[in-house]
Amino acid sequence: MPSESEIISRVRNRARAGDGVLVGVGDDAAVIKGAGGKDLIACCDLMVEGVHFRIEWAPPRFIGRKALAASLSDIAAMGGVAKFAMISIALPDKCSSEFIDELFSGLFEFAEAHAVSIVGGDTSSSRDSLFIDVSVLGECESGRAVTRRGARPGDVIHVTGSLGGSACGLRLLEDGFRLDASKDVELIEDGNDTARRQALLKHLAPEPQSKLGRAIGETGLATAMIDISDGLSTDLWHILDESNCGAIIRADAVPIAECVGSLQSAADPVALALKSGEEYELLFTSRPESGSQLAELADALGVRLTTIGQIVEKNGLRLERNGALESLEPSGYEHLISSS
Amino acid sequence: MPSESEIISRVRNRARAGDGVLVGVGDDAAVIKGAGGKDLIACCDLMVEGVHFRIEWAPPRFIGRKALAASLSDIAAMGGVAKFAMISIALPDKCSSEFIDELFSGLFEFAEAHAVSIVGGDTSSSRDSLFIDVSVLGECESGRAVTRRGARPGDVIHVTGSLGGSACGLRLLEDGFRLDASKDVELIEDGNDTARRQALLKHLAPEPQSKLGRAIGETGLATAMIDISDGLSTDLWHILDESNCGAIIRADAVPIAECVGSLQSAADPVALALKSGEEYELLFTSRPESGSQLAELADALGVRLTTIGQIVEKNGLRLERNGALESLEPSGYEHLISSS
Repeated sequence: MPSESEIISRVRNRARAGDGVLVGVGDDAAVIKGAGGKDLIACCDLMVEGVHFRIEWAPPRFIGRKALAASLSDIAAMGGVAKFAMISIALPDKCSSEFIDELFSGLFEFAEAHAVSIVGGDTSSSRDSLFIDVSVLGECESGRAVTRRGARPGDVIHVTGSLGGSACGLRLLEDGFRLDASKDVELIEDGNDTARRQALLKHLAPEPQSKLGRAIGETGLATAMIDISDGLSTDLWHILDESNCGAIIRADAVPIAECVGSLQSAADPVALALKSGEEYELLFTSRPESGSQLAELADALGVRLTTIGQIVEKNGLRLERNGALESLEPSGYEHLISSS
Repeated sequence: MPSESEIISRVRNRARAGDGVLVGVGDDAAVIKGAGGKDLIACCDLMVEGVHFRIEWAPPRFIGRKALAASLSDIAAMGGVAKFAMISIALPDKCSSEFIDELFSGLFEFAEAHAVSIVGGDTSSSRDSLFIDVSVLGECESGRAVTRRGARPGDVIHVTGSLGGSACGLRLLEDGFRLDASKDVELIEDGNDTARRQALLKHLAPEPQSKLGRAIGETGLATAMIDISDGLSTDLWHILDESNCGAIIRADAVPIAECVGSLQSAADPVALALKSGEEYELLFTSRPESGSQLAELADALGVRLTTIGQIVEKNGLRLERNGALESLEPSGYEHLISSS
């Protein structure tokens, strides 16, 4: 079977931009020319049991929540605001009535918290895996969508939050750690381990940067933007490919989640942070002179924002560490579970 | 596991209509108030291997085509015109590169034929079954969407095309008949059997009634509309439930596909036609005085249109056959394959 990126590339080559399509296949979301001074933003995000999650890893509420969070993050990465969602779900027999109710509760609660109306979808049985596809419709001011294409040499590179927590959380799940279903947030094995709780929640219940994404769209301060779903290095490669430029990242500037230090002493924390997928943080570029305005914006919204490097003319992605430059290949993140 | 209709009912109870939602969960598609004199219509349709299709039943081109056709039929059933589509697909290892290319070819060709631009989607691997979810965005003139709610006593009931062919095609597939992959349209076992070919194509490559659906939306001639995906009797029940009325159908008026007579001599052809799902014909009601205008419209578009009964005040669905009235329960169609 061809890789996901190869399939996307083929679909993209095949897709012809029709009337009104401002951004088609190949960005975080599609952008369609709207009326009344607004453009429509649309995306889907697919979560498949055994590939993106395991049912036994978390209460079903988290599965529903994360399915929506991933699409909301895509809308944020375009600088838009999410408005409506449709949920398609294929349910195997093993899913009890309570399981389904919990899963939808997680979805609906998260939708309400983000002022998103669930307007439709489809349901089916499934003979084996659970499958959820969430489509989200959003909008932005006409012409304000932030694509992956606008980065230019001299731009600085910013990232929200801290990285590596999702990878840590995944490792913990694989090692048998769980959140306590009855309390939603405590660990079975080790109730007071704050770092483990942080990591598990980052992986199972990520919070998309919806407010900052929207504000960036409204202010027009970013030149290119993407959300981190495949890992910083891979997602930055997408920006570089689309913008036809290169980048240098400073290793000592990469914001590393606290839990990485305390839980994974053996690993190279920077490498982990650069590879960790499903972080749902925003990665974007701006002109250097927009830096202070962006810092104020993030501060006002309570979002940690870090400048990690800059865009350069020479193609490729390099990591500056201890005064030397290492090449970073677009290896990134493979969605989590190999076939089993 | 609860039934599909029970899950939809729960989701519907949970979904609160947000700002701008004209039609939410529970119709063929959602309708969202738009700007510039248009409303946005959005729907998803999910096709799951082993539930809606088997890979060995047809060339992958047909699977892609049908996945899109089902969503286009939903847009037609709202009286809208489809514009954009997003494709989410989870592919198991068994799908070869050629298989995937063929599947997408079927999708893209059908999209082009219907002037629909594919603007995005998502891909994933799957550890077992193939899943495809197609989201379609369309539009209609503001306030012109045709819901399931507007039928009134005295309205007449119309159906496009003829019914029963999809059920016949499904039976043939279960009995081992196939289309010839190399020619797309001929049978392996019996190359000249026109009736079999008609039935297999109706099931594997349904043609949504996009033009008539759109024209009905533009002219405002229908009071309620739905597409036949679960079988005429079940889908008519949806209209009756939403419109709070009843209906009487005349058995001798139900248009039965030719292949039903020639292939299934033992069955009750009317019962088969009423139950046959995945027909993707339009079922709608109108005031009696609109009948001739509708007939002209259908005629101009080359669509067969049949009046099969009328809406009455008394709740329930009844079949008039040989001068007697039989009750028709909303049994309908279970998507095709039980777990195996």
